[in-house]
Amino acid sequence: MEIPYKIYLEENELPRQWYNVRADMKNKPAPLLNPATHQPATLDELSAVFCRELAEQELNEKDAYIDIPQEIIDFYKMYRPSPLVRAYCLEKALGTPAKIYYKFEGNNTSGSHKLNSAIAQAYYAKKQGLKGVTTETGAGQWGTALSMACSYFDLECKVYMVKVSYEQKPFRREVMRTYGANVTPSPSNTTEIGRKILQEFPGTNGSLGCAISEAVETALHTEGYRYVLGSVLNQVLLHQSVIGLESMTACDKYGIKPDVIIGCAGGGSNLGGLISPFMGRKLRGEADYQFIAVEPKSCPSLTRGKYAYDFCDTGKVCPLQKMYTLGSGFMPSPNHAGGLRYHGMSGIVSQLYDDGLMEARAVEQTSVFEAAQQFARIEGILPAPESSHAIRVAIDEAMKCKETGEEKTILFGLTGTGYFDMVAYQKFNDGEMSDYIPTDEEIAKSLADLPQV
Amino acid sequence: MEIPYKIYLEENELPRQWYNVRADMKNKPAPLLNPATHQPATLDELSAVFCRELAEQELNEKDAYIDIPQEIIDFYKMYRPSPLVRAYCLEKALGTPAKIYYKFEGNNTSGSHKLNSAIAQAYYAKKQGLKGVTTETGAGQWGTALSMACSYFDLECKVYMVKVSYEQKPFRREVMRTYGANVTPSPSNTTEIGRKILQEFPGTNGSLGCAISEAVETALHTEGYRYVLGSVLNQVLLHQSVIGLESMTACDKYGIKPDVIIGCAGGGSNLGGLISPFMGRKLRGEADYQFIAVEPKSCPSLTRGKYAYDFCDTGKVCPLQKMYTLGSGFMPSPNHAGGLRYHGMSGIVSQLYDDGLMEARAVEQTSVFEAAQQFARIEGILPAPESSHAIRVAIDEAMKCKETGEEKTILFGLTGTGYFDMVAYQKFNDGEMSDYIPTDEEIAKSLADLPQV
Repeated sequence: MEIPYKIYLEENELPRQWYNVRADMKNKPAPLLNPATHQPATLDELSAVFCRELAEQELNEKDAYIDIPQEIIDFYKMYRPSPLVRAYCLEKALGTPAKIYYKFEGNNTSGSHKLNSAIAQAYYAKKQGLKGVTTETGAGQWGTALSMACSYFDLECKVYMVKVSYEQKPFRREVMRTYGANVTPSPSNTTEIGRKILQEFPGTNGSLGCAISEAVETALHTEGYRYVLGSVLNQVLLHQSVIGLESMTACDKYGIKPDVIIGCAGGGSNLGGLISPFMGRKLRGEADYQFIAVEPKSCPSLTRGKYAYDFCDTGKVCPLQKMYTLGSGFMPSPNHAGGLRYHGMSGIVSQLYDDGLMEARAVEQTSVFEAAQQFARIEGILPAPESSHAIRVAIDEAMKCKETGEEKTILFGLTGTGYFDMVAYQKFNDGEMSDYIPTDEEIAKSLADLPQV
Repeated sequence: MEIPYKIYLEENELPRQWYNVRADMKNKPAPLLNPATHQPATLDELSAVFCRELAEQELNEKDAYIDIPQEIIDFYKMYRPSPLVRAYCLEKALGTPAKIYYKFEGNNTSGSHKLNSAIAQAYYAKKQGLKGVTTETGAGQWGTALSMACSYFDLECKVYMVKVSYEQKPFRREVMRTYGANVTPSPSNTTEIGRKILQEFPGTNGSLGCAISEAVETALHTEGYRYVLGSVLNQVLLHQSVIGLESMTACDKYGIKPDVIIGCAGGGSNLGGLISPFMGRKLRGEADYQFIAVEPKSCPSLTRGKYAYDFCDTGKVCPLQKMYTLGSGFMPSPNHAGGLRYHGMSGIVSQLYDDGLMEARAVEQTSVFEAAQQFARIEGILPAPESSHAIRVAIDEAMKCKETGEEKTILFGLTGTGYFDMVAYQKFNDGEMSDYIPTDEEIAKSLADLPQV
């Protein structure tokens, strides 16, 4: 069958259920621990912070498939199915015998795959009768997605945006405001922890860790509110499985058999979502794939971190999670892929990696932007810096095929567009972008602070 | 047949030919005139400025269909078909019995429909063996589209960007640079006219008229270069007919019969492209439609201008065109819909309007942004300010149906996204946006300078 440039599934081919890869994992991810007692966090404990049904999803290791509520399907229909694209032009430009496909999640106003989970989390909040939700955002993609989702379900949305981003990325902020969100630069005077930090460090630019703490505090102290998070959690990977399910249906329909599946990895939401259903087949012995997680060399949690219990936030208020981590005090150097600057990794991805079911590679920023520019010029899509990590390794793999003559089929996740990342592109265009690799001493130092569990 | 949220045509349903509405027009648009002799511009004269085949297309009134070269079809496949979207959520929110559809052209990195003509113009330039092309850009959408097209065909691209935009919209500029374009703030020292203007008006912010003059001068004085333009011209409307052809195929396939077809109108490229094939049916007596062109009240060429020969540029170097115009010296007030600030209108659209085959409406900026915000929140797409003019009138028409109970089918063109227009959204979000309507005296003054033909 001839493969079109872009495969769009029909509406009736869209997934009606999310896939929960934990059901097929022999070694389950370790449980979240209560930070005070170091005992597994209970449903009731999690429900104080998260919506009840989301807390249930977080703990659910048994059900392989979970129904997607009709209201969420209706929203998905506004921007899904996302296309599975055959990169004919890129293949030709590289002169590779490899076949390259990418699943493109950037064709929505949030600019990324984040909307897949944002709409689910907003739906369950609405269903529970909540008034609103709080969250933090760094680069702003998650905050934008959540603002859109809350606007759709008429929920209030309070976003704590890391101060330096709030000031340097006014456009993202305005998109959130256009969707009716309340955006506060963090640290702020609206929370106890914010006031404390401002007193200790006047003039600070803020950090993701502080913004998380402010968002959690506000959720706990505001009637009818809960806190939501855009990555790392099991529930988020569950919702993001829609990426992999659509990809698999499209591949099966056209007889495409991927050999290598590649995704960028920050907290693991996109990677986990893309690979989950394929990993399920591998776990059940039905097929085999090579999975590659790509992370920045400046924040190499999988390739240089430790698999251990750690705090999810620098404020140390969230449950402890067993994951590949660089230590919650690790401060990644300025790296423009804001979505890949997290010190830890999804528990599911961490366990799969530890079990040897997938590989990881770390790449340098300038080589990532070289790939981004090449891809933009050839395939006509200006990619997000985060997504470009996957492009880098996809091109590398395709060039290996050119050397060996292998006709491998490569599938990678193109998670989003870079329209709000032009400051980083400008640095690259002006030749002012540099690479940064943390020393062993730096990593050892931040790992020394792991909690004793 | 049930209508899906989004209709994507199959690859084999894509248009293989553009439609040239002039072939079906009884009253043809008046010919372009040589500005020196006031005689109809010849093919040779036009070929000095434009690529030969584009000049032929400009003059071709006979052929209803013109083959789309395979190379252009291959590029179209990277971002086309664009979806025809059923606005189920908007209909529900408005409580209207009307059925609303929009053809969405924003799912590509240029962010608008401009790419449809940019790739065609770049192709013919390449085919003619040219080294490069020049153009001007105001808001930057056309410049971005042309940069992408030139990068694809390995052509040089020199963009003169109005200085105030160059400085205030650095992100658009960086997208162009990422695609390898040479972007110069206009007026510049690189041309005679630029130097003259800088001497006369040191510190000027530049204007579109000046940027056109610089781009034309550079094309004429650079070996292997031609000048290209993103709107107004017959050739541009021809290429943009791909929008209307896809829309018509999708409508026919699903039995959708539009009653009202709405597009925003600046130079007329999107409007003309969307309506052309439907207008063809109307001209041939096969069907009837109500067509509505929507323009800003701040630049009302159709609703308050004069149908007369005028200069296309303020520098008065381009051929004269008969069109609805406010006079080439008309200075539209600051209006954020940069793409709708042109003093004139496509000759084809002007003639159709003059023949009573379509209507025009002028709308105020604040009401346009109200519609934009409403649409963004309900349909999940943040629209470009230009496109939002069409949304405004589509919502108005749907609300009329609510009053009368009519179940009209409304189709409008959603030409692009507003991701690079957040400064305008911020003004709206902050309540600092104002309306401006030129006085009769202002318009009479600029119309007094029309050339004597």
